Amino acid sequence: MSTTTPPLALPLSVIPADIRSAQDYAALAPHFMAPSHLAYISGGSGYGLSVAANVTAFEQWAIYPRLLRDVSHGHTRIRLAGDDYAHPFFLAPVAFHKLAHAGGEVETARAAQAIDTCMIASTQSACSLEDTAAAAGPQRWFQPYLLPQRAHTLDLLRRAEAAGYRAIVLTVDAPIQVANRRALAARFQLPSDVSAVNLRGYDTMPRFAGNGDGESRFFQGAMRGAPSWDDIRWVMSQTTLPVWVKGVLHPDDAVALRDAGVAGIAVSNHGGRSLDGAPSGLDVLPAIRAAVGADLPLMYDGGIQSGSDAFKALALGANAVAVGRLQLYALSVAGALGVAHMLKLLREELEICMAMAGCATISEINRGALLPQARRRD
Amino acid sequence: MSTTTPPLALPLSVIPADIRSAQDYAALAPHFMAPSHLAYISGGSGYGLSVAANVTAFEQWAIYPRLLRDVSHGHTRIRLAGDDYAHPFFLAPVAFHKLAHAGGEVETARAAQAIDTCMIASTQSACSLEDTAAAAGPQRWFQPYLLPQRAHTLDLLRRAEAAGYRAIVLTVDAPIQVANRRALAARFQLPSDVSAVNLRGYDTMPRFAGNGDGESRFFQGAMRGAPSWDDIRWVMSQTTLPVWVKGVLHPDDAVALRDAGVAGIAVSNHGGRSLDGAPSGLDVLPAIRAAVGADLPLMYDGGIQSGSDAFKALALGANAVAVGRLQLYALSVAGALGVAHMLKLLREELEICMAMAGCATISEINRGALLPQARRRD
Amino acid sequence: MSTTTPPLALPLSVIPADIRSAQDYAALAPHFMAPSHLAYISGGSGYGLSVAANVTAFEQWAIYPRLLRDVSHGHTRIRLAGDDYAHPFFLAPVAFHKLAHAGGEVETARAAQAIDTCMIASTQSACSLEDTAAAAGPQRWFQPYLLPQRAHTLDLLRRAEAAGYRAIVLTVDAPIQVANRRALAARFQLPSDVSAVNLRGYDTMPRFAGNGDGESRFFQGAMRGAPSWDDIRWVMSQTTLPVWVKGVLHPDDAVALRDAGVAGIAVSNHGGRSLDGAPSGLDVLPAIRAAVGADLPLMYDGGIQSGSDAFKALALGANAVAVGRLQLYALSVAGALGVAHMLKLLREELEICMAMAGCATISEINRGALLPQARRRD
Amino acid sequence: MSTTTPPLALPLSVIPADIRSAQDYAALAPHFMAPSHLAYISGGSGYGLSVAANVTAFEQWAIYPRLLRDVSHGHTRIRLAGDDYAHPFFLAPVAFHKLAHAGGEVETARAAQAIDTCMIASTQSACSLEDTAAAAGPQRWFQPYLLPQRAHTLDLLRRAEAAGYRAIVLTVDAPIQVANRRALAARFQLPSDVSAVNLRGYDTMPRFAGNGDGESRFFQGAMRGAPSWDDIRWVMSQTTLPVWVKGVLHPDDAVALRDAGVAGIAVSNHGGRSLDGAPSGLDVLPAIRAAVGADLPLMYDGGIQSGSDAFKALALGANAVAVGRLQLYALSVAGALGVAHMLKLLREELEICMAMAGCATISEINRGALLPQARRRD
Repeated sequence: MSTTTPPLALPLSVIPADIRSAQDYAALAPHFMAPSHLAYISGGSGYGLSVAANVTAFEQWAIYPRLLRDVSHGHTRIRLAGDDYAHPFFLAPVAFHKLAHAGGEVETARAAQAIDTCMIASTQSACSLEDTAAAAGPQRWFQPYLLPQRAHTLDLLRRAEAAGYRAIVLTVDAPIQVANRRALAARFQLPSDVSAVNLRGYDTMPRFAGNGDGESRFFQGAMRGAPSWDDIRWVMSQTTLPVWVKGVLHPDDAVALRDAGVAGIAVSNHGGRSLDGAPSGLDVLPAIRAAVGADLPLMYDGGIQSGSDAFKALALGANAVAVGRLQLYALSVAGALGVAHMLKLLREELEICMAMAGCATISEINRGALLPQARRRD
Repeated sequence: MSTTTPPLALPLSVIPADIRSAQDYAALAPHFMAPSHLAYISGGSGYGLSVAANVTAFEQWAIYPRLLRDVSHGHTRIRLAGDDYAHPFFLAPVAFHKLAHAGGEVETARAAQAIDTCMIASTQSACSLEDTAAAAGPQRWFQPYLLPQRAHTLDLLRRAEAAGYRAIVLTVDAPIQVANRRALAARFQLPSDVSAVNLRGYDTMPRFAGNGDGESRFFQGAMRGAPSWDDIRWVMSQTTLPVWVKGVLHPDDAVALRDAGVAGIAVSNHGGRSLDGAPSGLDVLPAIRAAVGADLPLMYDGGIQSGSDAFKALALGANAVAVGRLQLYALSVAGALGVAHMLKLLREELEICMAMAGCATISEINRGALLPQARRRD
Repeated sequence: MSTTTPPLALPLSVIPADIRSAQDYAALAPHFMAPSHLAYISGGSGYGLSVAANVTAFEQWAIYPRLLRDVSHGHTRIRLAGDDYAHPFFLAPVAFHKLAHAGGEVETARAAQAIDTCMIASTQSACSLEDTAAAAGPQRWFQPYLLPQRAHTLDLLRRAEAAGYRAIVLTVDAPIQVANRRALAARFQLPSDVSAVNLRGYDTMPRFAGNGDGESRFFQGAMRGAPSWDDIRWVMSQTTLPVWVKGVLHPDDAVALRDAGVAGIAVSNHGGRSLDGAPSGLDVLPAIRAAVGADLPLMYDGGIQSGSDAFKALALGANAVAVGRLQLYALSVAGALGVAHMLKLLREELEICMAMAGCATISEINRGALLPQARRRD
Repeated sequence: MSTTTPPLALPLSVIPADIRSAQDYAALAPHFMAPSHLAYISGGSGYGLSVAANVTAFEQWAIYPRLLRDVSHGHTRIRLAGDDYAHPFFLAPVAFHKLAHAGGEVETARAAQAIDTCMIASTQSACSLEDTAAAAGPQRWFQPYLLPQRAHTLDLLRRAEAAGYRAIVLTVDAPIQVANRRALAARFQLPSDVSAVNLRGYDTMPRFAGNGDGESRFFQGAMRGAPSWDDIRWVMSQTTLPVWVKGVLHPDDAVALRDAGVAGIAVSNHGGRSLDGAPSGLDVLPAIRAAVGADLPLMYDGGIQSGSDAFKALALGANAVAVGRLQLYALSVAGALGVAHMLKLLREELEICMAMAGCATISEINRGALLPQARRRD
C-alpha cells in the first residue's frame, strides 16, 4: 500500500504492558518485525486455506465447565516416552529465529530453559544446534533433515546426540516447497546474515534433478528425494534416541508409523505451510487417536494460540502440544523474556481451563470435556 | 479512537421516547454510562466467545405460531419451590449497580417491587443487603458469597434471613476471576465511592495464597478456596431457606446437585463472564432438563434480551429466566422507572409470544413450540 | 442519515428500461415511494427475523436441471378447488395499495385482469372491495376481516359475494399487531387520504378492552377478540364460497383445518409481519404437505421474489404461490403496467425453471427436482 | 461507477511477473480486457447463484496429505475412450475467444498444441473450426450445435470430422438463453468484428417461433427447438466419432445417457451460465459416479481454478476436468503463451497435490483422499 513503513521498535527488555494473553504477542509483533518477515512467518502455503482451517477448527468446540471439584492437587505435568515435563507445551521446530530477533534460536532456547519448556530445534536454524543446545534446558529435542547423503544425515544425528538432544523429530510432510503467497507478495528474502549454519559442509542438493524429457519436476524431481519408509527405519536403526514423526494427518499413516515403532507422532498440517487445502490436524486428531489406540504419544501443533486451544487439542487426543508462530512473535517483542512470558501465559491459561473444567491433571482432560459448538458469528 | 468522549446524559425521569422493546435499553445505555463502565458490564471474560455464544444460541430456534387457540384465560404466573410469581423474569445477581446509576441496588429494588419481580441481590453490591431488601418487594432472593471463614458466611446468611430474603443462590462457577478484556482495554476501575459494603468486617482474602515453589497460583491458589460439595451441604444445613446453585452447564453436575437436595439450579454460563469458551447455557438446557427430570426447578440466564428469548429458554426446559445486563442498561437510562419499564416490556413480549404460539400458561411452553432454524444471514 | 430526501419520481407510464427480472422492481421502488412507506412495506415485525428467514429459506435449495425432455406441450395452468388459473401466481392480500400508487387496489386489479391473475383483495384497502372487483378479472378472491360483530362480518361476506369474489381467505395468524420497527424508525403514518373504506359503518373495536387489574392487555385484551375455531366454522356455514385459511405454519394446525373442511390453506409467516421469530413457511411446507396428504390445496407465500422461488415452493408441496411486497413495488414504479409486467416476468421465470428442470406442468414439479444446497457465501 | 476507464494493456509477449498460480490470471485479466467483455465472461446467468455455488462446492473438501509414499514413478497421463492424454486438463468449449484476444480460438489452439492439451472447440467461435483445428494439436474435440435443419448439423459434423476432431461434445443443458445480469449491466455487445463464422450459410433460427395465442415463448418457443433424445441418437448414428454429452447434473439423466451409448458425460452446470440456481456439478458428481458405475468416462467442469480443485473433482469421480473462464483470462493477458503457461501451472499444481496426497497416478485419486471440511471463515 505504502512505500514507507514506520521504523520498527527494538525488542523490549521488559514484559510489555497490556499483554493479557499469549495471543497478544501476535498483535504486538508487527511493531517489532519487518513486514516481509512477518508475512513469511504468518503466511502459509498458497492461499492460506490450511492456516485458516487451523483457526476454524478450534472454534468448533466449547469447553464444559464443571463444578465443585477439588483440583487443589492439580498440576500440568506430563510423562512422555519416559521423560517428565512440567507442562505439555513444546516449542515447535521453526526455521530461522533470527528473522524475529538478532539472538535467534539461542535467545529462544534461553526462554525454554527458564520456563522448563522443551524446545524442538530445527535443522534450518541460524544458530548452530550446539549453541542452541548449550542455551536450552535439559529438555531439548532436535528435528534433523534427511539429507541427500546418508553420511551427512548421520553426522547431523551424531551431532544432535552429542549436544544432548533427547529425541529426534522427523518432519516428513513437506517433500515439496509450496510457495507462501503472502511472503512472495511482501518480497520476502532471507537476509544476508541469516543462513542455515547447521548444514555447512553437507550436500543439500536433491539427489535427482528430474525434469528430463516428459518428466515432472515434482514426481521425477523433488519426490525422488522425499523421505521414505526406508529412511524412517534407517534413522531408527542409527540412533538410540526416541524417534518421532511429524506431519501426520491420516489415520492409516499414523497406524503404519506406530507399527514401524516410532516413539510418537506429531499430528500437524505444518502450520498450514505445506499442502494448501490440507485439513487442520485438530479435525483429524480424534480419528487418529482412535486408530492408534490409547498408548502412542501424540503431539498436536497448528494454530495453538491459547491455553484453551491447548485444552481442546488435549481433549481430542493429544498428549502434548507444540507452539509455532507464537514463539517468534514473542521473541520479536521481547526476546527470551517475551518467549518465557508467552509460555507462562499459555500454561496459566491452560491451568485456568483445567481448573474450570474440573481436570486436575492432563490425563483427566478428555473428549467429554468438550461440546460441539455452533459456529459463532463473525 | 477519540480522546474526548461526549458528556453523559443524566438518568431520565420519564420513560424515554423510541423505546419499543426491552432490548432498546441496551442501545440507549451508551449515552448514559461511562465507556469504561459500559465495557465492564457488556464485556465478558477473555475474548467474549461465551458472550457471543449466548446470542448465537437463541438464533438457532424459531417459534411456531399456533392458530385459533383460546388463550383468553392466559397468564404468566409461575409457582417455583412453593412460591408464586407474577411472571418468570428474575433479576439476576449483578455486581455494583452504582456503576449504572447513583441509586445502586436500592433503585433497582424499587423497580422490582413496582413490577412484581423477584430480585436476586448480589453480595457484591454497593448498597447493603438490608437497604436493598427494604426497597425490594416481598419476592427477593440473596446470593451470598462463600467467605474464607465460615463464621462470616454464616453471618451473611443470618443477615439475609433477617432481611427477609426468601431463597439463597450460591454461584459456584467462577472460582477464578478471568480478565474481561474489554474492561481492561477501557481502563475500567471501580470508582472510589463504590465498594462491597456487605463484606465490611469480613475476611475476604482466600484461605490459601498458593504459589509456593512449583505451585500453581490457580491449582494451589484460587482453587483451594473454591466452593466444594462440603460447602454446599454445609450451607443447606445452616439455613431453612431454599438453596439454589447457579452456574451449571453439565448434566452430570445438575444431577449431582439434584441428588444433593438443592431447591433448584440456575443453568448459566455466567453471562459469558467466567470461562471464555464455555457453551451457552441454552445449548445445554435440553440435556440438563432430560437428565434431572421434570420436577427440579431450572432457571436460565445468559443473553436474554427479549420475551422471545425467554420463550425459547422456557421451551427448552427452564421454569424461569434471569436478566443480567439489561437491568443495568435500563437502570442507567431511567433508574427504577427504566428497570420497571424494561421488565414490563419483557413480560409483554413474552405474552405476545405465548399468545401467538397458543400457550396460555408458562407450563404449556415446551420443546414442540420450537423449530430448529437455519442460521440467518448476517 | 440526511434530513433531505430526493424528490420521488412519478409512476412511469411505460415499462422501465433495465428491468430484467421481477425482483428488479424491488430495487427501483425506492425511487418511487416515500421512505416511510417503503419502510412500512418492506419491514416486518420486530427486528425482521422472519423477513430474513424467508430469504434464507430459498437459498437452501438448488434446482436440478434435467435434459432432453420434451416440454413443448408445457404450460403453467393449474386447477385449484374447481377453478382454472393460467398460472400459479396469486396477488396476496396486502393493505393499502395507495401507499404505493394513487390508484390503489383498483390499479392493481387492472393489472391482475390484464395478466390473468387472481387478486386476493384485502379488507384493509383504500379502494372499496366493489371498485376493486369491478376492475379485477373474473378470478378474484376476498380476504374478509372477522369483525367484533358477526352481523358486520356477515355484511362484509355478502358484499364480497355480491361483488363476485370467488373464494374467501381468512387470515388468522395476526391476532396481535406487533410493531414494525423499520416503519416506526421511519415515522410511518397512514396518510390522511388513505383509510379502510371497506370498514365504514362497522364496529371495528375489539369486543374486550381487557387490562383490568391483573389482566394482560394481550391475553385478556387482544386475544379475546382473536379468531376461534367457532369463527371459522361459522364463516363456512354462512357462505357457499370456498373458505381458505391463511397463516398456517404448524402441521397439526394444518390437519385440524383440513378436518374442519377448509377449501385450502395458505402456508405463510405473514411476510414476516406477524410473530417475529416465526420460521419461514418454506421450511415447514414439506412437513405440512406430508401431514395433510396430497389432496388439500396449499398456497405458499413469504419472500417469493422470482420464478425460481416459486418453483421451489411448488416443489416443496405448494399448489400455488402468492406474491406480496413485489406487487406494491411494481405498482409504485409503473402502476398497473408495472404490476402486469412483474407478473409476466415471474411467470416467464417460472416457465424457464420448469423447462430447464424438465417439468412440462406444475404437477410435475416435486421434491425430486431440488437438491439441498450448502449455504452460499455472502 | 466512473465514466472513464483506464486504457487496456496490450497482451504481453512474455509470461508476466508475479504469476504464481493459474488463478492469478483471473486477477490480471481486468487489466487486459474491456470491462464489458470481462463482465460477459465472468458473469453467469441471472444473479450468479450457480457461479457462486461452483466456488463454494470446492471449499467443502480438504485434501489428506499422505506420507512416505514412493511416487517417483508418478505421472498425470490418462486414457480416455481409447486415447491417451498427457494430463486430465481439457479446454472447455467457450464462445468467441476474440473477446479476450484478437487471435481468437487459433491463438488458444496454439497453446493447446504447445502444452499437449485437448481443446474442445465451440461452434460459436470467431475463428473457423478448420483454422482452429490447423493450429491445435492432434488432440482436439469439437462441440457442434444442433441446428434447426439436420442437413446443416450434418454438414457441421462432416466438417469437424474432416478437420480431424477426435470426438464430438453435445451441449444439451442450455435450451434457453438466460440473461447474464453482469453482462447486461455492463452493456455488453458482441463487437462488430466478432461473429459466429462457423455458422455462415446455415439456418440458425429456431424451427418454431412459438408465442401464438396462449402459447409460451419458452414451452412452445425455445423448447420446441431444444435437443431431444432423438437428436442424440441421430448424431451418434451419423458419425463414428465418440459422442459426449455435456451439462449433466442429475444421476438419472447420466444413467439414461450411458444406456443410450454415449462415449462419456461432462458433469457441468455450464459454468453457472445456464439455469441460475442449478447446483454445482461438484456437489452431484459422487452421486453421478455411483449411478453410472466405474466405467463411464466423466469429465467435470465448473469453477476449476487450481490444481487442487482438479484433484477434488478427480477424487469425487471425474476422469478429467475442463477449464473454462481461466483460458480466456490467460489468453487476454499473454495470448497463447499465457494459456500455455496457465495450463502448465494447473498441471504442476495438480502434480503437487498428487505427490503430497501420495497418488502417483490419476487413477489412484479417489474419495478417500478427501475430508469434508467445515466451512472456512470468510
